[in-house]
Amino acid sequence: MSHKIIILGASGYTGAELVRLIATHPTMEIVALSAERKAGLEMGAVFPHLRHLSLPMLKKIDEIDFSTADLVFCALPHATSQAVIRTLPKTVKIVDLSADFRLRDPESYAAWYGQPHSATDLQKEAVYGLTEFYREQIKTARLVAGTGCNAAAGQYALRPLIEAGVIDLDEIILDLKAGVSGAGRSPKEMLLHAELSEGLGAYSAGGKHRHLGEFDQEFSAIAGRDIKVQFTPHLVPVNRGILITTYVKGEAAEIYATLAAAYAQETFVTVVPFGELPQMKHVRGSNFAHVGVEGDRLPGRAVVVSVIDNLTKGSSGQAIQNANLMLGEEETAGLMLAPVFP
Amino acid sequence: MSHKIIILGASGYTGAELVRLIATHPTMEIVALSAERKAGLEMGAVFPHLRHLSLPMLKKIDEIDFSTADLVFCALPHATSQAVIRTLPKTVKIVDLSADFRLRDPESYAAWYGQPHSATDLQKEAVYGLTEFYREQIKTARLVAGTGCNAAAGQYALRPLIEAGVIDLDEIILDLKAGVSGAGRSPKEMLLHAELSEGLGAYSAGGKHRHLGEFDQEFSAIAGRDIKVQFTPHLVPVNRGILITTYVKGEAAEIYATLAAAYAQETFVTVVPFGELPQMKHVRGSNFAHVGVEGDRLPGRAVVVSVIDNLTKGSSGQAIQNANLMLGEEETAGLMLAPVFP
Amino acid sequence: MSHKIIILGASGYTGAELVRLIATHPTMEIVALSAERKAGLEMGAVFPHLRHLSLPMLKKIDEIDFSTADLVFCALPHATSQAVIRTLPKTVKIVDLSADFRLRDPESYAAWYGQPHSATDLQKEAVYGLTEFYREQIKTARLVAGTGCNAAAGQYALRPLIEAGVIDLDEIILDLKAGVSGAGRSPKEMLLHAELSEGLGAYSAGGKHRHLGEFDQEFSAIAGRDIKVQFTPHLVPVNRGILITTYVKGEAAEIYATLAAAYAQETFVTVVPFGELPQMKHVRGSNFAHVGVEGDRLPGRAVVVSVIDNLTKGSSGQAIQNANLMLGEEETAGLMLAPVFP
Amino acid sequence: MSHKIIILGASGYTGAELVRLIATHPTMEIVALSAERKAGLEMGAVFPHLRHLSLPMLKKIDEIDFSTADLVFCALPHATSQAVIRTLPKTVKIVDLSADFRLRDPESYAAWYGQPHSATDLQKEAVYGLTEFYREQIKTARLVAGTGCNAAAGQYALRPLIEAGVIDLDEIILDLKAGVSGAGRSPKEMLLHAELSEGLGAYSAGGKHRHLGEFDQEFSAIAGRDIKVQFTPHLVPVNRGILITTYVKGEAAEIYATLAAAYAQETFVTVVPFGELPQMKHVRGSNFAHVGVEGDRLPGRAVVVSVIDNLTKGSSGQAIQNANLMLGEEETAGLMLAPVFP
Repeated sequence: MSHKIIILGASGYTGAELVRLIATHPTMEIVALSAERKAGLEMGAVFPHLRHLSLPMLKKIDEIDFSTADLVFCALPHATSQAVIRTLPKTVKIVDLSADFRLRDPESYAAWYGQPHSATDLQKEAVYGLTEFYREQIKTARLVAGTGCNAAAGQYALRPLIEAGVIDLDEIILDLKAGVSGAGRSPKEMLLHAELSEGLGAYSAGGKHRHLGEFDQEFSAIAGRDIKVQFTPHLVPVNRGILITTYVKGEAAEIYATLAAAYAQETFVTVVPFGELPQMKHVRGSNFAHVGVEGDRLPGRAVVVSVIDNLTKGSSGQAIQNANLMLGEEETAGLMLAPVFP
Repeated sequence: MSHKIIILGASGYTGAELVRLIATHPTMEIVALSAERKAGLEMGAVFPHLRHLSLPMLKKIDEIDFSTADLVFCALPHATSQAVIRTLPKTVKIVDLSADFRLRDPESYAAWYGQPHSATDLQKEAVYGLTEFYREQIKTARLVAGTGCNAAAGQYALRPLIEAGVIDLDEIILDLKAGVSGAGRSPKEMLLHAELSEGLGAYSAGGKHRHLGEFDQEFSAIAGRDIKVQFTPHLVPVNRGILITTYVKGEAAEIYATLAAAYAQETFVTVVPFGELPQMKHVRGSNFAHVGVEGDRLPGRAVVVSVIDNLTKGSSGQAIQNANLMLGEEETAGLMLAPVFP
Repeated sequence: MSHKIIILGASGYTGAELVRLIATHPTMEIVALSAERKAGLEMGAVFPHLRHLSLPMLKKIDEIDFSTADLVFCALPHATSQAVIRTLPKTVKIVDLSADFRLRDPESYAAWYGQPHSATDLQKEAVYGLTEFYREQIKTARLVAGTGCNAAAGQYALRPLIEAGVIDLDEIILDLKAGVSGAGRSPKEMLLHAELSEGLGAYSAGGKHRHLGEFDQEFSAIAGRDIKVQFTPHLVPVNRGILITTYVKGEAAEIYATLAAAYAQETFVTVVPFGELPQMKHVRGSNFAHVGVEGDRLPGRAVVVSVIDNLTKGSSGQAIQNANLMLGEEETAGLMLAPVFP
Repeated sequence: MSHKIIILGASGYTGAELVRLIATHPTMEIVALSAERKAGLEMGAVFPHLRHLSLPMLKKIDEIDFSTADLVFCALPHATSQAVIRTLPKTVKIVDLSADFRLRDPESYAAWYGQPHSATDLQKEAVYGLTEFYREQIKTARLVAGTGCNAAAGQYALRPLIEAGVIDLDEIILDLKAGVSGAGRSPKEMLLHAELSEGLGAYSAGGKHRHLGEFDQEFSAIAGRDIKVQFTPHLVPVNRGILITTYVKGEAAEIYATLAAAYAQETFVTVVPFGELPQMKHVRGSNFAHVGVEGDRLPGRAVVVSVIDNLTKGSSGQAIQNANLMLGEEETAGLMLAPVFP
């Protein structure tokens, strides 16, 4: 029996990625797609790579009947997302891919996103969607907040290490390299091919990137005290993928053992052999995360490298993984697609 | 029940693509993988993107037991392929991805490949693997010869037009743009990132590209007389994908109607709306082909643009499509993966 | 002694390229730069790669004093360009990089650009800026119209052949592959890195591209009768560069000899050895054009491949070459920079 | 009057870059070019982008007459370089681009390069070629050792800070992103376009990269005690360029002021405004370095980002800058080419 699925915000990259993955999902059926500015168009006109699929025509949100849906994926911009989700019937399950419900603290939300939250009750209810660490709560949640893609990649490297106390919590540096699809499909000068290709640069450096709100919240909760990491994102001329080089202080062998143990039973998180470091392209188009550890010539120091596809494990694949749990399906349903290489 | 599958030449890109696709195939099970120079290694060491799969270790061909296999995919270089296939038990079905059995005429083979064929009996037996046009023969074949990737893309544009006689058969020009994975994984100066990226150029122009042998054979057979096309391949800084701009003389509307009718029932070949031209990226990572037609300001002229992913529809996806037919499975089994965009 | 130079439209790619080239020009000095929306900014803020240069601040056009300038490069959009140039003092020489003065016939302009020309007297005065073929007229011109970048590349391949009558004038096909900087710096969805990289596609096919107006005008003028070519542009994931594969009917050896003779004395146009075809990257960042010829297995057919950098030889380098002539300088002054490879 | 220049190892990327730069150098004339395996070929056959230049044919080294040369650029692999330089006449000046004379200590050389040095007397004589910091010694040197390209980029960020003592010397982390041309033109699987594009990864992490030998030597010499930095190189899908994100502990404002003062008089090193971070592409194809500083939300921490073109400022441009000094020319002669963007 199929679950009836609605996708809001289907004309963005995460919306298209949801459709791509659901195309071969065994028990999900898309019954409605929204896109305000592209309403009235076929999805195949907006994303010709999806032309072979039988899909409902794009509509405006207020034209959609939510009453018979089982689950809504909400791939709208933040702020819009909370306004829309407030109006949905309580009978429908929701996986939100925006930033609106990632931060549990309204003040933290206001600080990072520059405006007060308008649905603080929903904010309390929402479960943080990093599946491997919130699995039980997600199973029974009505509203799950997809994580930031960068925040996901960083947490796969660090959560078990902070939990186990095997690294110095005041000396954590994340140097992130991110592909451009994470910045979305809206035209901006800095996202042009001519500007980006054959170059790269840092952005939102020095503590300004909003995904720091998630790192602060999650790492502090694990440690039981305030933890603040240093984080420098870089935009690289790659479409999909995130690679984080995390600098930590601790014993490399112990760090490796901690990560290997933490993910031993996880289908989607692979710890590669000690001394190997994963590459961004090894997970492209898939829901897998690879994590690697290497010690340094300086005793007591190590690097942890984690890679994910920002649109899949970092966003739409994670969303489906969570939806599978919420709908009582196998967690891996529709998500075992192997990475596309080269 | 699973079919037992062996892949020879698993350390190349087409070998890896076969593994990627079989990873989510419902009824194929890989029982052996060969790679002469990488024998003894895990597949995940050679292709880390396949790390999450349980796969047999790479072996040399002569270490492999073929007696219980149902089907062998042979992804070896040409010449090697014919030498190996000659020695396989007659009980096993074979899909060859090399150039060795594409040309039915031994003299033609010798002319294009510079050496005589050493298995001319097998050459006679082999069925040309362009599924949509050889479907019935493939179903009962023991040996199917995968087409050249460029040859496949060109034939999707032209076969129905030649068959219907709606274009001038002596005035066909194919201008091909091909991604680099078609050239394989063996290191060559011209395939280096530094040489290829931020540029492009023609190669094997003027009638020298070996896939012309297939065009000559197939188009002449359809027309019932010698047909020779003009063909200029270009290497473009893209990993996967083939786009051919085919220049023909004929009425654009009739050309479009002919193609639309020819592919109306085909799952994997989509004719896009008249006046639209498909892009290379719209089929990336998938087994789909898109074909489009546009008329010219000069009456009686048109362009037909066809796109495929060289590693999927042009090679490993086609091979699995053919294997499905040979094994009595649904033709589309394991092949409905949507393209990866962006 | 330095010539005083003004650049209008300095915040676009052709404007920046003019500044790059003038930076090492022996006798040009930039005295003013305009950019309406970026007025008040330093050029180094808009284009940080020009940070090391001492340049005047960006101004609005109506803030600029033209009275002491020797020459104005006008890198404004078409239509805007004619409106501005009409108002400039008659004492200043002008090299226009827009499309506004390329077509001599007002009706042709209106047909291709969708609006009547508002400065038809200037249109008559303007000299077409393909230096190698209009050299003497350019030396004495007050207003020179830079050619379309694609139009330049195509003419280097074809003008001598049409002039010599060595090809069939009714059977000319140009298949163009163009880098993205030619489309400018204004953000558009189709120019995003995520949309363009790892793919390519045709655009304005079938006779719709505006540079056809130039081909029609120039080729017909040479032949003394109406000549219409077939032209399919493709956008490729490369920043700079144009490669045209031109299909012609004629004897390859004669075609080669004709081109070799035509360019024997030209500094910037190189005919590569017979049977070699130039690559896009061989001229990147330079004012050089390379042209190559190869015969086909079909007798009486050949391909001519021509490459230029769209921003240099196709636009800003050509503009400086023409300005050198207009100012009485060596034609090659400031333009002998070797291509940047890799 | 021209200086007579010989380039050994002209068939590699740094050799080609030397030729590109010398092409517009006012007082250098190339009198011989060597390339062992390509001997007998024209340079334009090996690097068609240099086709327009009149250059001597490639020869084997032992066919070259060094007696009338003024200066030799030696762009050979390490180990080969020392063997060749030992044999050159003492009358000729030498700029070596290999790693052979960068390390002054024979034991350090043996440790990092895996074999003893065979010309330890020359090793003592050689001056380290980071022009801005060894200018006076370079002017009178006979043998100058070009720095590692990564080592150059890192030293521009750190030397003044270590000298001034404004950062914690035991807490320095360099996260490097490097384009692929630094790895040379010899075909290797990891350098293929298909392997590199659309991805990135770390290599030689954990203290294994040979340029650490230079960091250790230089930083320790400045500090007057052993300094060891942490260094993680990443290979990114870009042809030219190095960007290093350096993590330091110190006051951002003081760090900025120190760098701004250090480079205030330098033509080729630009410190961008406080709070801005330079991008790799802003210096492409040029001899410029850009350095930027941003503070962190964590007090007492900052990032310094430095960018250079690995082939120009990181290698061949630096070599010419040093040669200019050695020959008594203007330091900037031939090197004021503006970066190529986009």
